[in-house]
Amino acid sequence: MTQRSFTIPRSVEWKETHILLLDQQKLPALSEYIELYRIEDVWEAIKTLKVRGAPAIGITAAFGLALSASQYEEDSLTEFKERLQEEKDYLAGSRPTAVNLTWALNRLASACKGVQSVNEAKTVLIHEAIQIQVEDEETCRQIGAHGLKLFSRNERIMTICNAGSIATARYGTALAPFYLAQEQDFPLQVYACETRPVFQGARLTAWELMQAGVDVTLITDSMAAFTIQQKGISAIITGADRIARNGDTANKIGTFNLALLARAFGIPFYIAAPLSTFDFSIETGAEIPIEERDPEEITFAAGTRIAPEGVAVYNPAFDVTPAEFITGIITEKGVISGNYQDVISGLFAQTAAN
Amino acid sequence: MTQRSFTIPRSVEWKETHILLLDQQKLPALSEYIELYRIEDVWEAIKTLKVRGAPAIGITAAFGLALSASQYEEDSLTEFKERLQEEKDYLAGSRPTAVNLTWALNRLASACKGVQSVNEAKTVLIHEAIQIQVEDEETCRQIGAHGLKLFSRNERIMTICNAGSIATARYGTALAPFYLAQEQDFPLQVYACETRPVFQGARLTAWELMQAGVDVTLITDSMAAFTIQQKGISAIITGADRIARNGDTANKIGTFNLALLARAFGIPFYIAAPLSTFDFSIETGAEIPIEERDPEEITFAAGTRIAPEGVAVYNPAFDVTPAEFITGIITEKGVISGNYQDVISGLFAQTAAN
Repeated sequence: MTQRSFTIPRSVEWKETHILLLDQQKLPALSEYIELYRIEDVWEAIKTLKVRGAPAIGITAAFGLALSASQYEEDSLTEFKERLQEEKDYLAGSRPTAVNLTWALNRLASACKGVQSVNEAKTVLIHEAIQIQVEDEETCRQIGAHGLKLFSRNERIMTICNAGSIATARYGTALAPFYLAQEQDFPLQVYACETRPVFQGARLTAWELMQAGVDVTLITDSMAAFTIQQKGISAIITGADRIARNGDTANKIGTFNLALLARAFGIPFYIAAPLSTFDFSIETGAEIPIEERDPEEITFAAGTRIAPEGVAVYNPAFDVTPAEFITGIITEKGVISGNYQDVISGLFAQTAAN
Repeated sequence: MTQRSFTIPRSVEWKETHILLLDQQKLPALSEYIELYRIEDVWEAIKTLKVRGAPAIGITAAFGLALSASQYEEDSLTEFKERLQEEKDYLAGSRPTAVNLTWALNRLASACKGVQSVNEAKTVLIHEAIQIQVEDEETCRQIGAHGLKLFSRNERIMTICNAGSIATARYGTALAPFYLAQEQDFPLQVYACETRPVFQGARLTAWELMQAGVDVTLITDSMAAFTIQQKGISAIITGADRIARNGDTANKIGTFNLALLARAFGIPFYIAAPLSTFDFSIETGAEIPIEERDPEEITFAAGTRIAPEGVAVYNPAFDVTPAEFITGIITEKGVISGNYQDVISGLFAQTAAN
């Protein structure tokens, strides 16, 4: 009798001489890990979306810069830092709109500001890159622990898109409670919406939950209401791309649908996201710009045309769920609900004071 | 300057020597009409889903039987009827679960019960087949006219699946008001949900509305809530597969989602269906059996695998929308709302008395 071993997949791992990266473009057909040795490999991996998910991109870029810098032959600290700056700019250009990418690279640059030698700089960069990963994993773990407290054994919970382990250092955000549950032999069942148009639910969420042995069932987005009713779904949990001051949340298109269905069925709707997802510069969701993407994402499915040529298409990448439909926002500092504005401000003050 | 001519597409046409059939399997890439001369062609067209939609299947089968019978060389009426019965059974086997197929074929058989000669039988069969199409077109036109009265100029209306012209004799049910509007230069905008897993909205509804010059925009099912909000959708209209005595309605999976969203946004949700869709043998939607279809409809999209092998799938073909979420049912006899049971019984009594 063979026993299958389950593991929570990681998107990226530091291997001293190289970076091991899960090629997310090949999922779910192939679970292929590629070895990145040169900064050009890292640039290309980010550019071609082999790695996706804001935290995972940031970690990959940080590892890439630290790895490359560890091989610099410059003796002069000034020359070392000049080259570091050049390669930092180079990597930042791999996906210019990814905020976490720039954030992680800036953090590395800042970390070696006070160093006295090239060797110290090399060590500090590696340490800082690993630290970014460790902190993100800890944040996700805490989100998972806080989220899991909201659920009872054998609940059936619905999610959309991939706010998962492979989008972060580990565990993910919306999927973190399921991994924590799995580690504690706490049975939960997940219903994953496939997430048209790009199928992140089918391609990524179903795959990574199966890798970890989590009980997952795939449905189309159109089946959400009937599945909630027929299968007794008792909660919905999703990630977030950006949360306004008042709690309005931008996330993958389809999230707003689910929030309204949760209200209709009287079940809780949770957002799981680190505090860094809050954007205090915007008051409400109305200020969040919604990117409209290529019509071919809709007129084609998995490479095949499914709609008439020339058809008009509306393809918003995200939607905005008003705070009133969100039962709670699960952060690494606990679950926020009610008056988001005051509670969030309090949490940030508390975080700053720590 | 070229002017494009628009026309409401038909699925099937009687051409005396043959039947002209739109090959719906090739849509939307190709708008190909095939000529059916022999009963085997008709059997194969129904079997391989070149024609779909209950009324369109019934009409095609009736045309097929009438066409074939017109070529019988039997002189004896008894032998003629024996052969008719054989071919009727043969055609009925092309898609055994299609209720309209059997209904249409039985209607033809009944029509020639009292005939005196083979020639009379041949004429009666052709007349009856054409009559089935004429009646269905008239039913659809009336549904369209009653439906159109519910809308104002420039409204934006959402639909799902294909309750359209090519599923019926002409006009369709849920799409009929849009064709009537088009004929009257009454501007309406349609938002069509793509309708996973089989993409009838993308493949068929978008195509046929474009053929007729109706203003149609395609979205994924996941975009419904955000589109209602952002584009000011003011009503939702869908077809029906089966309606229980109390008004509960089974229709393509995703319909229940839309009914709940309509309620959340405070906009009307209409079902458009002929009275023949009512099944008085069932009291409520709870009695309607829901077919679960092949998991590969979900794990593959347009022929390409998009989900991990072995993933658990839930794939109900239909959902049931409770009557309380239906603003009105648009029939050929008018719009029914409120206490469906009494109103429907009244309508049927009225129909029977006519």
